[in-house]
Amino acid sequence: MDDLQIRPARKDDVAAIVGLLADDLLGAQRESPDDLTPYLAAWERLSGDPHQHLVVAVRGDRVVGTLQLTVIPGLSRRGATRSIIEGVRIHADERGGGLGTRLIEWAVDESRRQNCRLVQLTSDNTRTDAHRFYERLGFTASHVGFKLQL
Amino acid sequence: MDDLQIRPARKDDVAAIVGLLADDLLGAQRESPDDLTPYLAAWERLSGDPHQHLVVAVRGDRVVGTLQLTVIPGLSRRGATRSIIEGVRIHADERGGGLGTRLIEWAVDESRRQNCRLVQLTSDNTRTDAHRFYERLGFTASHVGFKLQL
Repeated sequence: MDDLQIRPARKDDVAAIVGLLADDLLGAQRESPDDLTPYLAAWERLSGDPHQHLVVAVRGDRVVGTLQLTVIPGLSRRGATRSIIEGVRIHADERGGGLGTRLIEWAVDESRRQNCRLVQLTSDNTRTDAHRFYERLGFTASHVGFKLQL
Repeated sequence: MDDLQIRPARKDDVAAIVGLLADDLLGAQRESPDDLTPYLAAWERLSGDPHQHLVVAVRGDRVVGTLQLTVIPGLSRRGATRSIIEGVRIHADERGGGLGTRLIEWAVDESRRQNCRLVQLTSDNTRTDAHRFYERLGFTASHVGFKLQL
């Protein structure tokens, strides 16, 4: 029995998504699930941008996973469009059960459908389990990811 | 005397930008400057997307640098908008002369102006000079960058 559905996130999914973002070693320090105001504003920005695809994985009526896919045109690599995956989160109850693979496969398939020639993502240096996971799915750890907080 | 200007790339800049993309150890194998068709199509996609900022650095009437800035809304980090820098290229004659710093500073300033809370980029593992450059500008090499070619 597999009742899993991956679909665009709706406004009434935002609280559940924020719950997933906060239930994470790094996210716990960065999120404020008690005040949804900034998240709802961000959801409005996302839903108004046709190149943004925020999705949830739902089992029954419960949000058990999420990721954000962004489609980015560009000149390099002969005018290749690429996609970027951000904010991958899996509910604690579902970790190790194949849901991460399903979500990433969804993102790769959607990227192909949108004629992307490259899918990319960055993962915090400390998330070594995630690094092995992405390598198993065929990703290559070819780059260093830099961030600057403003 | 500093006649440098950083401005949005126009359609008639595409050939010069492709020249910069191809004049690069990694880019030389990936670009086809003799056929601009796919690049011009990509320029159309970029110019129709308000979250894309492809810019050129121009000295006199000569394109001497380029980068692409993408503004990405998101739920994580309390609904933080972030920006991503891609395709940074500096003309061979200008390398080591501070133009890279000027372009990245432009991107950081523009990101701030658009209320981004984070600027991020990835750099190929082999570009160790670039890594030192980004660290000097305050970026932290906190992530591993994964890519999957489709």
